Amino acid sequence: MPAAESPSPKSRRTAATRPELRLRMRVTVGEAIAVGPGKVALLEAVDEHRSISAAAKALGMSYRRAWLLIDELNRSLKSPAVTTAAGGANGGGTALTEVGHRLIQLYRGIEAQAEQACRAEIGELLALVAR
Amino acid sequence: MPAAESPSPKSRRTAATRPELRLRMRVTVGEAIAVGPGKVALLEAVDEHRSISAAAKALGMSYRRAWLLIDELNRSLKSPAVTTAAGGANGGGTALTEVGHRLIQLYRGIEAQAEQACRAEIGELLALVAR
Repeated sequence: MPAAESPSPKSRRTAATRPELRLRMRVTVGEAIAVGPGKVALLEAVDEHRSISAAAKALGMSYRRAWLLIDELNRSLKSPAVTTAAGGANGGGTALTEVGHRLIQLYRGIEAQAEQACRAEIGELLALVAR
Repeated sequence: MPAAESPSPKSRRTAATRPELRLRMRVTVGEAIAVGPGKVALLEAVDEHRSISAAAKALGMSYRRAWLLIDELNRSLKSPAVTTAAGGANGGGTALTEVGHRLIQLYRGIEAQAEQACRAEIGELLALVAR
């Protein structure tokens, strides 16, 4: 597909009412959700903004909630996804670790690969649904 | 994997605390959810029990809720997934249509095929998570 341009109101409406498959992946440990779509989107925003508060703002989330989600994620991984360095030459800062980058890459890769692998069956499933 | 036997308390605990990937698929039309895990499980129960009330009971759901979900599903498809015949030699009855059977087959097939296609990446993602 071509790079997205701002769609016309008509094409936006058409896209919104066409049947779509939504895949949602979660990694659970017992009843706890270690990794899910919200945490992955937050990681991506932290990577973009290099700040938890800017990431929270971009996602319309409170700083407190963003901080808690990242803390929860870090604790549920064998090694943390986000590090926060206080002070230093750049005045500290927040960044993704290698694990954080790899987590995003795997999560988004699985989503894309799953849809690719099931393209024909997904098309058939969507075709059963009325617009 | 071998057919599930009733697990011992120990193996059940181990299974519950091992990181697991949960895939949840929904077919949406605009904001409406046409097909999702709840409706597919209900279809499977209707197919097994040949009755909406028995299916509802098996899933711990009210008859009213089950009926509404099936009505919503039928309306959102081009042709219905469940038919209910009143009277007749067998005293009427509820059954899945060809579309209903195909819908289950596609939905469960996509889940299985997606996990199969991404087995290596899923393993790597799960390995990032602490037990």
